[in-house]
Amino acid sequence: MTSTPIALNPERIRALVTHALMEDLGDAGDLTSLSVIPDNAIAQVDIVARDTGVCAGLDFAEEAFKQLAPSNQVSRFVKDGDPLQSGTKLMHIEGHARSILSAERVALNFMGHMSGIASETAKLVKCISGTHAKICDTRKTTPGLRAIEKYAVRMGGGVNHRFGLYDAILIKDNHIAVAGSISKALEQAFAYAGHMVQVEIEVDTLDQLQEALASGAGVILLDNMSPEQLSQAVEITNKRAKLEASGRVSLETVRDIALSGVDYISVGRITHSAPCLDLGLDITINT
Amino acid sequence: MTSTPIALNPERIRALVTHALMEDLGDAGDLTSLSVIPDNAIAQVDIVARDTGVCAGLDFAEEAFKQLAPSNQVSRFVKDGDPLQSGTKLMHIEGHARSILSAERVALNFMGHMSGIASETAKLVKCISGTHAKICDTRKTTPGLRAIEKYAVRMGGGVNHRFGLYDAILIKDNHIAVAGSISKALEQAFAYAGHMVQVEIEVDTLDQLQEALASGAGVILLDNMSPEQLSQAVEITNKRAKLEASGRVSLETVRDIALSGVDYISVGRITHSAPCLDLGLDITINT
Amino acid sequence: MTSTPIALNPERIRALVTHALMEDLGDAGDLTSLSVIPDNAIAQVDIVARDTGVCAGLDFAEEAFKQLAPSNQVSRFVKDGDPLQSGTKLMHIEGHARSILSAERVALNFMGHMSGIASETAKLVKCISGTHAKICDTRKTTPGLRAIEKYAVRMGGGVNHRFGLYDAILIKDNHIAVAGSISKALEQAFAYAGHMVQVEIEVDTLDQLQEALASGAGVILLDNMSPEQLSQAVEITNKRAKLEASGRVSLETVRDIALSGVDYISVGRITHSAPCLDLGLDITINT
Amino acid sequence: MTSTPIALNPERIRALVTHALMEDLGDAGDLTSLSVIPDNAIAQVDIVARDTGVCAGLDFAEEAFKQLAPSNQVSRFVKDGDPLQSGTKLMHIEGHARSILSAERVALNFMGHMSGIASETAKLVKCISGTHAKICDTRKTTPGLRAIEKYAVRMGGGVNHRFGLYDAILIKDNHIAVAGSISKALEQAFAYAGHMVQVEIEVDTLDQLQEALASGAGVILLDNMSPEQLSQAVEITNKRAKLEASGRVSLETVRDIALSGVDYISVGRITHSAPCLDLGLDITINT
Amino acid sequence: MTSTPIALNPERIRALVTHALMEDLGDAGDLTSLSVIPDNAIAQVDIVARDTGVCAGLDFAEEAFKQLAPSNQVSRFVKDGDPLQSGTKLMHIEGHARSILSAERVALNFMGHMSGIASETAKLVKCISGTHAKICDTRKTTPGLRAIEKYAVRMGGGVNHRFGLYDAILIKDNHIAVAGSISKALEQAFAYAGHMVQVEIEVDTLDQLQEALASGAGVILLDNMSPEQLSQAVEITNKRAKLEASGRVSLETVRDIALSGVDYISVGRITHSAPCLDLGLDITINT
Amino acid sequence: MTSTPIALNPERIRALVTHALMEDLGDAGDLTSLSVIPDNAIAQVDIVARDTGVCAGLDFAEEAFKQLAPSNQVSRFVKDGDPLQSGTKLMHIEGHARSILSAERVALNFMGHMSGIASETAKLVKCISGTHAKICDTRKTTPGLRAIEKYAVRMGGGVNHRFGLYDAILIKDNHIAVAGSISKALEQAFAYAGHMVQVEIEVDTLDQLQEALASGAGVILLDNMSPEQLSQAVEITNKRAKLEASGRVSLETVRDIALSGVDYISVGRITHSAPCLDLGLDITINT
Repeated sequence: MTSTPIALNPERIRALVTHALMEDLGDAGDLTSLSVIPDNAIAQVDIVARDTGVCAGLDFAEEAFKQLAPSNQVSRFVKDGDPLQSGTKLMHIEGHARSILSAERVALNFMGHMSGIASETAKLVKCISGTHAKICDTRKTTPGLRAIEKYAVRMGGGVNHRFGLYDAILIKDNHIAVAGSISKALEQAFAYAGHMVQVEIEVDTLDQLQEALASGAGVILLDNMSPEQLSQAVEITNKRAKLEASGRVSLETVRDIALSGVDYISVGRITHSAPCLDLGLDITINT
Repeated sequence: MTSTPIALNPERIRALVTHALMEDLGDAGDLTSLSVIPDNAIAQVDIVARDTGVCAGLDFAEEAFKQLAPSNQVSRFVKDGDPLQSGTKLMHIEGHARSILSAERVALNFMGHMSGIASETAKLVKCISGTHAKICDTRKTTPGLRAIEKYAVRMGGGVNHRFGLYDAILIKDNHIAVAGSISKALEQAFAYAGHMVQVEIEVDTLDQLQEALASGAGVILLDNMSPEQLSQAVEITNKRAKLEASGRVSLETVRDIALSGVDYISVGRITHSAPCLDLGLDITINT
Repeated sequence: MTSTPIALNPERIRALVTHALMEDLGDAGDLTSLSVIPDNAIAQVDIVARDTGVCAGLDFAEEAFKQLAPSNQVSRFVKDGDPLQSGTKLMHIEGHARSILSAERVALNFMGHMSGIASETAKLVKCISGTHAKICDTRKTTPGLRAIEKYAVRMGGGVNHRFGLYDAILIKDNHIAVAGSISKALEQAFAYAGHMVQVEIEVDTLDQLQEALASGAGVILLDNMSPEQLSQAVEITNKRAKLEASGRVSLETVRDIALSGVDYISVGRITHSAPCLDLGLDITINT
Repeated sequence: MTSTPIALNPERIRALVTHALMEDLGDAGDLTSLSVIPDNAIAQVDIVARDTGVCAGLDFAEEAFKQLAPSNQVSRFVKDGDPLQSGTKLMHIEGHARSILSAERVALNFMGHMSGIASETAKLVKCISGTHAKICDTRKTTPGLRAIEKYAVRMGGGVNHRFGLYDAILIKDNHIAVAGSISKALEQAFAYAGHMVQVEIEVDTLDQLQEALASGAGVILLDNMSPEQLSQAVEITNKRAKLEASGRVSLETVRDIALSGVDYISVGRITHSAPCLDLGLDITINT
Repeated sequence: MTSTPIALNPERIRALVTHALMEDLGDAGDLTSLSVIPDNAIAQVDIVARDTGVCAGLDFAEEAFKQLAPSNQVSRFVKDGDPLQSGTKLMHIEGHARSILSAERVALNFMGHMSGIASETAKLVKCISGTHAKICDTRKTTPGLRAIEKYAVRMGGGVNHRFGLYDAILIKDNHIAVAGSISKALEQAFAYAGHMVQVEIEVDTLDQLQEALASGAGVILLDNMSPEQLSQAVEITNKRAKLEASGRVSLETVRDIALSGVDYISVGRITHSAPCLDLGLDITINT
Repeated sequence: MTSTPIALNPERIRALVTHALMEDLGDAGDLTSLSVIPDNAIAQVDIVARDTGVCAGLDFAEEAFKQLAPSNQVSRFVKDGDPLQSGTKLMHIEGHARSILSAERVALNFMGHMSGIASETAKLVKCISGTHAKICDTRKTTPGLRAIEKYAVRMGGGVNHRFGLYDAILIKDNHIAVAGSISKALEQAFAYAGHMVQVEIEVDTLDQLQEALASGAGVILLDNMSPEQLSQAVEITNKRAKLEASGRVSLETVRDIALSGVDYISVGRITHSAPCLDLGLDITINT
């Protein structure tokens, strides 16, 4: 169906789009198009950006238009990850007018949501250009859409933190409190994890950082530290572990955080609060 | 399971939460809690607002905590639709620590997303208090989550526009172009719709409004008109139809729009771009 | 997959047919065909009407034959909504004999059920030809099949009443009793519904009708009234609202009801008790 | 959940009811009850027969009322398979009024459909009382509902023919034509079937019957034979095989068919064309 | 999709493969291939047997490779049921390298599991060649995979016992104990079963065998009898019923059991404990 | 539902058991029990080991018995991970006899399969007791059952390798060939992976090992090396990376492999070829 990298496999895309189309079409279908648009009408459609941002979700739009009428023809002018300006054409669709009008909103809802996340990520990535740090996401995602939101973060130039509770360990303050100490928590985590699971531990102070490093932590989350504290942490760590900063990250603060020398900066906002990117449809219908 | 109004039936809530928990727990489960938290540990948890807003989604949070361990006890201090301040306690959960930590993120992701929408809606509702108008939503929702997003809009004091393409007709410019005229489009729509489907038509000018009224339109969408034009439209219409305004709606503009006398103001942003409401978990664990 | 109007989207058709085929084929498959029909046998098949009626469900039959063997070729001689006589050929299928025999019963079960509903509807529609009234359906449908049954009603010349509890309001006697009066019930309904949901109210007497009209009801259900009462109701209403008659509707009574001047006549029997239309398969198999 | 025989397991009942409730409630819920019935209203409800017939589907009704509000209390006055007269109370439900009103139609749709099949079966069973024959069903069932329709046939006093293509072999004329002869078809079927699958063969003439018997057929379907031919077939067979009659079965003809001495009479009409049994709900609501 | 007999319908194969691919790819996809293999790389792949056995599951492998990239080309050199030696090429796949590497393990897991069962069955079948007996399976299968395991048994030359509790009756000691006697149990079973369900009864002694035969049993399971006892059972039965032996069946004992003259020998081990057949992938990738 | 660690969440257990019960019960249910066992019969049942091994899957057995009749009472005498001898009682079930007999095979199929894997793992674990090494699994699992098979490996004393392609990177020979060299492959993997994904690389020679270590590999898979080569590899590595051995692992060879000093030994056989553990049911039924 698509020539983009298979990070999202075709059946998942198909299933998500089917679900969204059924949500929008219900049992009665698109009453407006059924009543007003003749079955033999042909539409020419362009998806066009109405704002600046980064493209993500083309496969979902294409799938929506084709799922309702496999004969619809789709051409793409950009690919996921490409920058968009107001006026950039993303995709041209030609074919059965009713099905195209019926799929329009689902196609735009996917692309607007995903491109919104990619765009918000890209803004932060741009702010820290030239530094060593990378922007990464969190598990603060929309229920049921984590796979596509994490994909969108990548399209925006970010990298992915763990995908769930299942693919990496992240020890936080509550876990440390129960374990009794940072070293005990890490010991238990290493024992359970085996060799194929990464272990990260969150610290709030430089003392905790020292303890984490002494206990063999390979990845350390520095929560809510100032750029100064972060710089000290980088110095203390001295490449013995990868460092991730989190908390109080905004377009204003992110560069200073990055300049501290940390490796990763995680931001919940790029997935849970990214505004939709404004995309529109230019349509011509011939009957 | 819950004493809130059954707008969202229990099986739907259960299914959405199951899906979100599986997304987060995967095949391996919560590796961190499994390695660090003893199975017999007991947790006391409060969900607390960290910002001002409106509550929505309590059923989802409760379901998440109970689904992983039915013995977990949940008490609520607010109900959906209630206002929240930073510090407001929403819910207390007590029970099996591992399951509570494993469910935390899913519970907060649902509540943060839904409360974010309720809160964004409430801000606009507050702006137009004392006027005749009501804030309503659109079909610009997150794929797969329309039901819960439209529910959240209601909790914020808004009303719902149509839920999909299936439950009402909305004739837009493309449909009018194909039909040949506003009157022809309306005629076809009324014929198809029968007596139980509402028909709305979008107009861009006051001339179109006149034509729509003359053709018997009962609901008319005034797109992208200035407050002055809207006032004229209200005068022209003279209660012969319900009027909805859309386009360029913000916290700054909404009151002027409302003061024009329109009945409804529809806003895509409250569902597709509402930032997550900041909620946190205060935890005590006893082993 | 099909050139018929997309009231039933392709993925829904696919899913319903998949489910029905799995129900019939189970884990072991079509034991009879597997044991007796060689894998390379070719079948030529015609679906033929054995009775008079109206066609509905061609997409489902085609999907069944193609789902088991995509190489099967299908041609259609009629379209949904067309009248059928005993002997009318509906569809020709040619291809892999085993798969065609395995799909036969599912194809006929769908088409017989849907055409049965279309035919039963058409009989009533014919009875009232020349009158102003239209035949419409109810929510008395077979669990899980409402979408295809309501589609079949349309194919028989009827129109659809609401699809569920979710797309329109219908206030009945119990609701009125709880609200306290017709006017209070309507007031609450209008407030909840917003502008995009149609509101109907059921009345049993002409007094109730007057009250409903006075309260602004736009659609009124006249339950179990005699043709004389219905005529009076039409006169009283004087086009201020749409009128629907229900109760005691049969082939004998329906024309008198229609002649009263009501707009709609709703009938549960066309969906919940329509007998299957008799369709058969003429087969030639070459090995 | 129930004390009836587990022919339909609880999870299947639950899933079918969930699906039907979602079909009726959609994303917006029961708009009428939500707008007019207070959340704290209590309802007392009786399900009452409005016609004569046989009860089937109580588990489905109970599940519908409990699924929307687990606190609803349900009592039963009859059990599946019991005869019903107009006025017979089947079930009493007490509890949350909104949920009861929202579940009403789904509960009645299941029970009306299933009781309709049981009732239609029972009429035929009664016609042949005192004879040796039994009424059985076919695969001419409503797509997706075969399990509950076959269950209803049992409740009406019938027995089940095969459930699908997977659990028994039935060789028809097309299969015989391909195999070359009755004996060859049977030979291939026995070889494929092994020892745990029953094999039946359809014959149209007494000559074919002789051939089938000579080839070791244990179950033979006599299609469209007159009572006289059937009597001859019974005599010829002389208990060497079980005999099933099909075709032209009605309330008028069935007794003569049974008196021929055949063992089974299969009837498609009891599943594909049984009219719904008329059931109603008597409701009292206290607010 | 395939030219093999449709015992497993295409939609079931598709669904099982989709589920397995999602299990392996998760939300993040094949991280290794995504990071190391360019999107435009082309792979040439052969599936090759590394051991002796019988082939089963080609459809599943093909589906896996095509589901991730429909453009992948697949050729087959053997068909299900064919014997394999170490070095036998089964299938050639050519196309999008990333998708082929991502599908490899799922394809091999299906084929290894199914071919393992076919191979284990074939070993027993070979042991009894020249005898009258057939090897059959049991309900001791892997949860959720019974259909494909029973298919694999057939490919190995075995026949299928019942597929579940639903398609045949098998009366065991506990049932007999509750019924009171073999004859009573059989009587009840025949009454419930009708004419299309096969009834088998398990006996432990020759006395029980006599009682079963006297009660009209058509299929009798002889549990845990020695070859001598089995021979006596065959003699006593004298073709009045089909006989199945079970218990203590191994490659060493099976021929003696078969030589007793029983019709069927059922073996749980061929489904619940068959080791995977060793298959490998030879790959060449061009970038 | 259970007091065991939530590695497998309750909804997943429920869904897998529901699926397996439907597979076994089909549309017609347990024909044998329905015909022979009265609905009011009460059964007392013990699940008993018939062989030596390790217990796994108790939650699944309990769920099966309770899902068909929630009133059934279940007591456990062991917990997952406990050793079993022939005769060990695992679980007692008391209640509705029909439902217990209907659930028996599903319960035993789950427990036999899972305990078989745990037992096979435990044998290898025992062989290497006192050494530094740990036994781990692979992705060679039964399609659809990976989560429960990996859980069973843990219960047998093993640790889990990656769960899928999504949670860790494992670079094999084909990947290296495409990348051009071990160092290039690792570089690309580290870049893609970020900080939360573990990266492992497979090497076949000690030269490759040196290159992998020089390129910063943290986990290295030594494929098909002799114990002597493995010892050299351990020495060369000198704790700079974790070492995993694979290939030619059997009860005979595993201890020598472990004594080489490697950290992990991965074995496909414990999941793809573990024979079922023999478990039985002792039943008493009172009517």
